Order: sequence, then structure tokens, then C-alpha cells
Amino acid sequence: MFPTVDEQLLHIRRGVEEIIPEAGLRAKLERSIGTSEPLVVKLGCDPSRPDLHLGHAVVLRKLRQFQDLGHQAVLIIGDFTGMIGDASGRSKTRPALSLEETRENGRSYLEQASAILDANRTRIVYNSEWLEKMSFRDVVELAGKYTVAQMLARDDFGTRYRTDEPIGLHELLYPLAQAQDSVAIKADIELGGTDQKFNLLVGRSIQKAVGQEQQVCILLPILQGLDGVEKMSKSLSNYVGIREAPNDMYGKLLSIPDDLIFRYFELASDANTRDLASLMVYCRENPRDAKHDLALAITEMYHGEGAAREARAYFEKTVIRKEDPDDIPVFRPKKTRLGLLDLMTQAGLTQSNGQARRLVQQRAVSIAGQKVSDVRTEVDVDKLAPFVLRVGKLRYMRIEK
Amino acid sequence: MFPTVDEQLLHIRRGVEEIIPEAGLRAKLERSIGTSEPLVVKLGCDPSRPDLHLGHAVVLRKLRQFQDLGHQAVLIIGDFTGMIGDASGRSKTRPALSLEETRENGRSYLEQASAILDANRTRIVYNSEWLEKMSFRDVVELAGKYTVAQMLARDDFGTRYRTDEPIGLHELLYPLAQAQDSVAIKADIELGGTDQKFNLLVGRSIQKAVGQEQQVCILLPILQGLDGVEKMSKSLSNYVGIREAPNDMYGKLLSIPDDLIFRYFELASDANTRDLASLMVYCRENPRDAKHDLALAITEMYHGEGAAREARAYFEKTVIRKEDPDDIPVFRPKKTRLGLLDLMTQAGLTQSNGQARRLVQQRAVSIAGQKVSDVRTEVDVDKLAPFVLRVGKLRYMRIEK
Repeated sequence: MFPTVDEQLLHIRRGVEEIIPEAGLRAKLERSIGTSEPLVVKLGCDPSRPDLHLGHAVVLRKLRQFQDLGHQAVLIIGDFTGMIGDASGRSKTRPALSLEETRENGRSYLEQASAILDANRTRIVYNSEWLEKMSFRDVVELAGKYTVAQMLARDDFGTRYRTDEPIGLHELLYPLAQAQDSVAIKADIELGGTDQKFNLLVGRSIQKAVGQEQQVCILLPILQGLDGVEKMSKSLSNYVGIREAPNDMYGKLLSIPDDLIFRYFELASDANTRDLASLMVYCRENPRDAKHDLALAITEMYHGEGAAREARAYFEKTVIRKEDPDDIPVFRPKKTRLGLLDLMTQAGLTQSNGQARRLVQQRAVSIAGQKVSDVRTEVDVDKLAPFVLRVGKLRYMRIEK
Repeated sequence: MFPTVDEQLLHIRRGVEEIIPEAGLRAKLERSIGTSEPLVVKLGCDPSRPDLHLGHAVVLRKLRQFQDLGHQAVLIIGDFTGMIGDASGRSKTRPALSLEETRENGRSYLEQASAILDANRTRIVYNSEWLEKMSFRDVVELAGKYTVAQMLARDDFGTRYRTDEPIGLHELLYPLAQAQDSVAIKADIELGGTDQKFNLLVGRSIQKAVGQEQQVCILLPILQGLDGVEKMSKSLSNYVGIREAPNDMYGKLLSIPDDLIFRYFELASDANTRDLASLMVYCRENPRDAKHDLALAITEMYHGEGAAREARAYFEKTVIRKEDPDDIPVFRPKKTRLGLLDLMTQAGLTQSNGQARRLVQQRAVSIAGQKVSDVRTEVDVDKLAPFVLRVGKLRYMRIEK
């Protein structure tokens, strides 16, 4: 029924940062083959994020790989924990959401995740199902299984505590609630980003404390964003949303640095695991072609082959042949003379002057085909318009009088 | 209906260590006189202690004083919080009790407290009434009103955290639960020992966070034990239980150091508040008489006038006139020759050789009327017996062959 342990490990290990403990995973896989019982693979999703991007998709893809190996995927919609807000990796308390908001976000998450998971073989549960039933007394009992020092050992909590950044007491309850999820579904494996390592390990502690077999924690790397520096994040505007239009998706993927191409193939595409070794060589030797192949592969995953080919054709015209696209939106500034940064932001090409400033400094901005590098540039609209203001490879605006 | 503010303050301030804030108390008293509404005065009791002693009675006596002034006493039996266990002033996690145990202890507490309070005017509530109804969600909301740093500012938590002594996460929930009690009964005033200062102030914070008028915290000193050094505590064997037999109570009170006599009058007796000033002079000038008066007064409070007078007669005979009492228990050692410390412990006069050693060193032990000061003293039972072995003023044993 299941592939051999080594065959499974080949797929499970793909792109993975850490497996805790390795031996435990092997033992569980062996048992599963022996009993013909699938492993229960848990992925908790934090429904405080309304839009999924390729960074979120990394763990979802890993869950899908487990489904393809015949195991039981359990997607936990953290509608309850979402009210608390996971502060992992954060330096501040997160704003509280209501159960209604987290459920609404959860539905949207599911809809998006269905592009990646095998929906028919995904068990979906809301953690309010068991956490809502817990009383103060149950919380006391759960909290008694963990100590303050263990909790403050988490990097972000420790840093915040030492730098006098307030940590709400409720935030300490989050990892316990997440651990209780593992107990509730008797998780064999929990998936998460490396920033979730601490929370996933609390799951192991609490399972042990209640006499359950401990889950194996599989940690996936945090995908770097398009800038190749920061982690992919909506707030950093370096992301590819999984619902973005084919042209946007394709074009954004063309903008990643060459040394990220293989990583994206490994973590974000459905390229065959057995082909990864040769793909790595290909990416190194032909980054330009490899980048188009990556953009095509990922766009196809989310939009199908036709849309992906159309996006490719569009970018061959605009980027490869350096032409302006056919249908450029038009913006007419109110002032006849204004700063470049103001113009970019007013035209909607950037969200703030600070972002505009960085882009100019990164030499990503051009006026009528000429790169601009001075952030203090003044634009004389009367004199210059009409002209094309271009930001990166993807954003254009025709500035008219 | 109520005495004047100044008249009330005279009684309220008796023996009190701190009132937080003073102005708040005056304002509440004024409002209460204006509206003819009694103030709600809260005392939470921790039912993990099965036996009350004069140390516990200090806050109960203060509550009684509020009753006598016409205010509403609310005694909260912490059957729910008792399960968590208050770690205030402690260096370790306390063992958990079940709700059944804490309720059983609570009943015993009430029975004992009835010797001090005006039972007809005491509202008794169990905090499980509201805390049991709280869900995980309610706990998250409550916990969100307080921070980790604020909690670790409590001396004992801070010390334990710095010295790597484990603090169970559930212990941080204790002060919040106690604060919730204040919210539930809308406390105007909460009484507690100085070791409860932190917990009582959390009550103020949480009341403020939910938009309630903040309680005034009235902190009573911790009564020193019979040794005049440590706080009164059962585990230190320096206590007077409020259910101890009249002779034991009277005799133990005779053993306190002179400089504690007035303190006991102030905190543990029902001596008239207006007489305290002259009592202070009397205690300083006539400690011997004052000590008997104190012993008589306190024994009378718990056992009535007759029993108190009998106890006095007994001690006039045995202590003042230095005679051995009439009915001395007998102990026959198995060995004919043994160390004094062993003999004391075997005879049940001490609980350990360590305690016996300290008592000998304190020159509290005599053999046949002779003080013994050498802890290595060997006793030749064959040669000496029968003789009276005396420990302090109260414990005797006739040693026979």
C-alpha cells in the first residue's frame, strides 16, 4: 500500500530544514507500512492572514507530498488560536481577532489551499472544536505541564522580555493551545516553518505529558522573497500571491535573483523530486532559461497551461524584447511639477514614498526608458509628458498631462 | 448609620501595614456614608491550609472590624484557586489539590473562621462559582490584560526565574484568578497579608481594565511566631492554633518574647482600639503581667472566660510557682543509656534530633530541674530515673526505667 521507507524519505526530505527526531520518523513510517495505517500529518494554519503566497505554499506542498504518499493530511484551521494570535518571530503583541473574523479568514484560506492540496483526502478541522470546550480548569491543567522558563526560551519571547517589550500573558497560551491541537488529533507528524520550531516542540512535550506518542516535527525553510534577502511577506511587497493574475505571477518570478531559482523549484514547484539534482545544474548553467521555466511551471500550477503560455508570450514581448506593453494605464498628475517619489506614490506604483525611495536607490525606476538614480529628481510634467514611468520589470504607468 | 470617616479610619488603621491608596479608602468611606451603602470588603482564603492559627486570624480580625463598622464582609473560599495553589512568597511550585479537597478544606476553614467573624453578616462564596464557568477564551481575554514582565516583577517569581527554579505556567494564572474574584464581587476593599500585596494589586489592574472602580488594598503585617523571629507557621512549630486546647494556647502565649506582647494585643486580640496606647506602655513596663493578660484575653476569645481562668490557674501553679504539673506522662526508654537528643525525640518531646539540638542550645531543656546546655549529654537512665525531662515551659515527660 505505501512506498518503501526509503522511497518515502526521499520525498519527505525534499527541501526540508530539520526533522526532529529523524529516527522517530523512520520508526513511524515502518510502523505505518506494517499496520497499513496512514500517518496523521498535521498542518496548522493561522487564519489571521487573508492571502496566501508562495511562502505559505511551501508547507502546504509538503502536506500534499504526504497525501501523495498515502498519508492522512489534517489541516487545522486555527480559528480559536487565531483569536490569540501567534507571536512567533514577532516583536510585538498582535491585535486580537474575533472568532467570526478568524472563521471567515479560515474559509478563504481553505479555498486558496485547495489549489495545492488533494481536497478529497484532506481532513479539515477547526481547533475551536476542542479548544472552545476547554474550561479555566482545563487550561490550568494544560499550563501546569510547561514552565515559564521553557516558554521564555523561545527566541522572540526572550528578546522581548529582555528589551522590556510587553508580552501579554495570553501570548504564552498560544503554543499550549497549538500543542493541544496535536493531542486532539493524535498527530504523528506536524509540519511548520522553521519559525514554528518552538511551538511544534511544545506539541511533543504536551503529548508526552499526557501519555501520547510524540509527534515528529518537520521544519521547512522560510522562503526568501523576490528580493532574495528578506523572507517572503506581504508587508515587504516581495511576494507572489497564489491568486495573483498569471502575468503578475510570471513577471514577479522573473525578478528573483539567479541564486534563488533552484530553491523555488525545490520548495515552490511540483518539479519531480527525482529531477532536482539535474535541475540544480541547469539553474546554475542557464539561469535565464531556468527562470522562465520556473515562472512557467509555477504559473501553470495555479492557472493552467494556457494562461501560463500566454503570460510567457507577454513577457517575451515586454521584457525580453524590451518593448513597452500594449495597454498601459494612464495617470494624470494634478501638479505640473512634482518630486519623482511623490509621482510614483500618487500614481499608485508604490505604496509610500519610502518604498519609492528604496526602488529608486535600487535603480529599478526609469522615466521614458532612462534609469533614474537620484531620489530628489523633480519631474516637469508639462515638459516631459506623455512618457512611461516604469518601476521594476512589471509596473508601468503612462504619465499624461 | 455608619460612624464618621475618622472614627472608621481609627479602627481600620489599627495594626495595618499599608493602605493602597489611602485617598481611595477615604473617598469610599465618604461615599458609603453618603449613600448609606456598606462597602464590599473581600477576604480570600486559601483552603490549602487545614488549620488556622493566630497568624491567619490577623486578617480575619480585620474583616470582623469592618463588620463591626457596618460593612459587608465577603469571605471567598478559594476552592478553584486552591487547585492552582498560590505560590506567593514560595520558592517552589505547590502540589495541586483537587476541587473536592479544596472544598473540604474550605468547610473546615469556615468552621474555624466562625470563631472570629460575625457569621450572620458574612457573605460566603466559593470562587469556583464564577471561575469554573470561564472558558479557555475567557482566560485568554483575562490573560491579555496583564503582561509577563508585570507578573515576573513579583519578588518570588522573579527570584525563581533568575535562579532557574521552575515556575509552572499555571502559577501565573493564580493572581489573575484572584483578581477575577474582585471583579466578580465588585470588591471595594481587599484584605491580605503583606505577602499578598502583589496579588491584591493585580486585582486593581484587572478591575480597571474591565472598567470597574478599583479596590483599595489593605495589607496586614505577617504575625511573628512564638520564637519572635520567623513568621508564625505550622511548619516552623512556632504557632498557636485557634483550636488548640486552652492550656496549650495559654502556655504557648506565655513563651513569646517581651517585645512581641503589644504586637499580639494589637493584631491578635480584641483589646479595644482606643486602649492600645495605654496598653503599649503597660506592656513595656510590666511585661510579665501583660503576657498573662494577653494569654488570658486570647484564650478567652477562643474558649470563653471559664476555660481561660482555669488555664491561668494551671500556669500559675506550674510556671509561676515552678512546680511540676500533677499529671505528667511517662516514657520508658528501651536503652538504659542514650544520648539526650535521642531521648527527647524518642519520648516524642521533639520531632527530630535537629530540633532537640536547637532547644538544648537555647537552654530550654532541663533534667530533674537542672538546665542542660551540652548537646552531647549522655543520659544514664538506670542511674537517674525516675526523673522529669522538661522542654520549654510546656512539655514534660517523666522518664522511668
